[in-house]
Amino acid sequence: MPVNLSTPVAAQLLPVAGVSLGTAEAGIKRADRKDLLVIKLDEGTTVAGVFTSNRFCAAPVIVAREHLAAGEGIRALVVNTGNANAGTGDPGMAAARTTCAKLAKLLGCSAEQVLPYSTGVIMEPLPVDKIVAGLPQAVANLNANNWFDAANAIMTTDIVAKAVSRQIQIGGKTVTVTGMSKGSGMIHPNMATMLGYIATDAAIAQPMLQQMVSEAADRSFNCITVDGDTSTNDSLMLIATGKSGAIVDAANRAAMQAAITEVATVLAQAIVRDGEGATKFITIKVEAGRDEAECKKIGYAIAHSPLVKTAFFASDPNLGRILAAIGYAGVGDLDVEKLKLYLDDVLVAEHGGRAASYQEEDGQRVMKQSDITIRVVLDRGTVNATLWTCDFSYDYVKINASYRS
Amino acid sequence: MPVNLSTPVAAQLLPVAGVSLGTAEAGIKRADRKDLLVIKLDEGTTVAGVFTSNRFCAAPVIVAREHLAAGEGIRALVVNTGNANAGTGDPGMAAARTTCAKLAKLLGCSAEQVLPYSTGVIMEPLPVDKIVAGLPQAVANLNANNWFDAANAIMTTDIVAKAVSRQIQIGGKTVTVTGMSKGSGMIHPNMATMLGYIATDAAIAQPMLQQMVSEAADRSFNCITVDGDTSTNDSLMLIATGKSGAIVDAANRAAMQAAITEVATVLAQAIVRDGEGATKFITIKVEAGRDEAECKKIGYAIAHSPLVKTAFFASDPNLGRILAAIGYAGVGDLDVEKLKLYLDDVLVAEHGGRAASYQEEDGQRVMKQSDITIRVVLDRGTVNATLWTCDFSYDYVKINASYRS
Repeated sequence: MPVNLSTPVAAQLLPVAGVSLGTAEAGIKRADRKDLLVIKLDEGTTVAGVFTSNRFCAAPVIVAREHLAAGEGIRALVVNTGNANAGTGDPGMAAARTTCAKLAKLLGCSAEQVLPYSTGVIMEPLPVDKIVAGLPQAVANLNANNWFDAANAIMTTDIVAKAVSRQIQIGGKTVTVTGMSKGSGMIHPNMATMLGYIATDAAIAQPMLQQMVSEAADRSFNCITVDGDTSTNDSLMLIATGKSGAIVDAANRAAMQAAITEVATVLAQAIVRDGEGATKFITIKVEAGRDEAECKKIGYAIAHSPLVKTAFFASDPNLGRILAAIGYAGVGDLDVEKLKLYLDDVLVAEHGGRAASYQEEDGQRVMKQSDITIRVVLDRGTVNATLWTCDFSYDYVKINASYRS
Repeated sequence: MPVNLSTPVAAQLLPVAGVSLGTAEAGIKRADRKDLLVIKLDEGTTVAGVFTSNRFCAAPVIVAREHLAAGEGIRALVVNTGNANAGTGDPGMAAARTTCAKLAKLLGCSAEQVLPYSTGVIMEPLPVDKIVAGLPQAVANLNANNWFDAANAIMTTDIVAKAVSRQIQIGGKTVTVTGMSKGSGMIHPNMATMLGYIATDAAIAQPMLQQMVSEAADRSFNCITVDGDTSTNDSLMLIATGKSGAIVDAANRAAMQAAITEVATVLAQAIVRDGEGATKFITIKVEAGRDEAECKKIGYAIAHSPLVKTAFFASDPNLGRILAAIGYAGVGDLDVEKLKLYLDDVLVAEHGGRAASYQEEDGQRVMKQSDITIRVVLDRGTVNATLWTCDFSYDYVKINASYRS
């Protein structure tokens, strides 16, 4: 079950003027479930995104990048679940282009004004006919109040939908930021099997929008990991319609960035809280390092260690496994005598070994919680980094040993 | 259960003249099991070793390195299970030194002539009094025919003991190589929670012995991974007593190296076959790469992917997960259109997607085997690398969620 995460309340998801959403049951992998989403954007909307770094990036990722680069102005996004259209070669590219062309025809725009996204099984042919057949239903359903439905339609192994809204004031105008995400496995830095869509009715010019989505991703989706796998399809999109009349400029940019980053962080953390088989949400803070790279190296070594993750699943304060992970993180000149390890507020290790004050029952108490912070103080610099991950349970294996069947 | 691996036959483990072994029940973590091993070496024996690269290396690793460097000639090794004496600070160092001093007294040598090894839980104080109390029993049992008992005494979560012998002819003399290892989790390149001891009755001078153990490790223990964790305690030792009368020199060195590497490879693969929860033994061959580093990067990305490992556990040819792992391995200029992916002899993917000839039932047939080879042909160079790993099952989680209890 998701860790301290519940389904969003539909009524709390605020529409974003200029954005409408429609879903359909296209029967891509299974019948009787919504598996297709169309997001329609009003003219004048700016769109920016960041994508997976996987060399086997999926066909829709390649096409979405091309269409963004074409600069004709994006008018729609289309997302299918049930099939990733990755590792599908030329037929996969053709399928992604066909999807865009067919939707463009329905909406009266060009194919280059449509961005495609797919998530699901890799290396199986995309059933593009089913998607094309489902598009009219999705278009017929387009509505600004459909964020909850949309968040449900993009789920794969997710247990709960992930969506959130925030509002801020800019220049006396109320600006809305609403976002949704999907993903619960194959989650890693540099994106994950995750799709994220964040829209605002502020007006944000294209170059600034690209910087803002990159910064938001770096502080949110690029700080989470479930299993260390980086997907072929990851995409985080930021959409700005301008319909609120508020214009983002140098003076108010920081406030806007903060709102976007906050929405992105809630959505990213929701992915970890809904991590496949997760029973614990773990925040890893690596502090007082020389640079961000070494803080993240140590953080990810802890976050990716199956031994650490299974110990958290068992609520077993077998905390030497964290020391071992710190030790092999690849920080060559790390002085283990100087670092301190905390579990929440409990000092666990210092001077290269167990802290004199450490009591097993204190560790046990923290380990039983569902939200836990691991804090490593390196005492060699002034830089900090924070990551989020989850534990590793029987159910992770169960889910991933049976995902296709 | 171990994958195609059975307990060695005691009678097939050949004694190595100049090496005697004795075990004891010291009650370090549990009663009624052998958990202490003494290996006594005749005078004139040379010893070399390679050790963990973990920054949190255990106290016995530090002491063993010191004593090897002292150059007084090693006369004994002592190994305990049940406690790793790692992350134990100054008291851990004192405990390791005490163990050496006490054994030295029993054997009539100096403390610097004894090498200590520990394996088990990290960050708990070593119960050195129990070890010291058990030493006389182990010394009383010393016998050249005790390799089987010794291999059993060093097990932790291992299900079966790991030991093997080979013989070769050098200069008309029969040379024996017998080795044993332990380890089944926390297994990673650059060693693992593994201990390995290989002894031969050939005479090998110290500098050559060090080169030979490094080369053997690079082709064996440094090519295996179970869970990507690198232990604090890994050590592989190579012992040469010279008692056969055969002297290793430039002319016969290759034959000797081959025998040592073969023994090391059998012992290393046995660790993977006995990997925690393993049901499949997977050989990963990455071929036609530009250099060994990129071949290993890709091999380890596949070997460490929990998604790949759970698919193998399920015998599910969800092979797109392998493409995804290749894609995020970090080979920046990899052309995915050119590579080919095989499962045993079945061509699975080429031209960036599923091979036209690929049939799901062929993939399914191979996935059901207990020994499987994944072959990735990069078509960008002439270098190959081979790694060995295992799948990821419910039992891995079970074992590691309950290891201490």
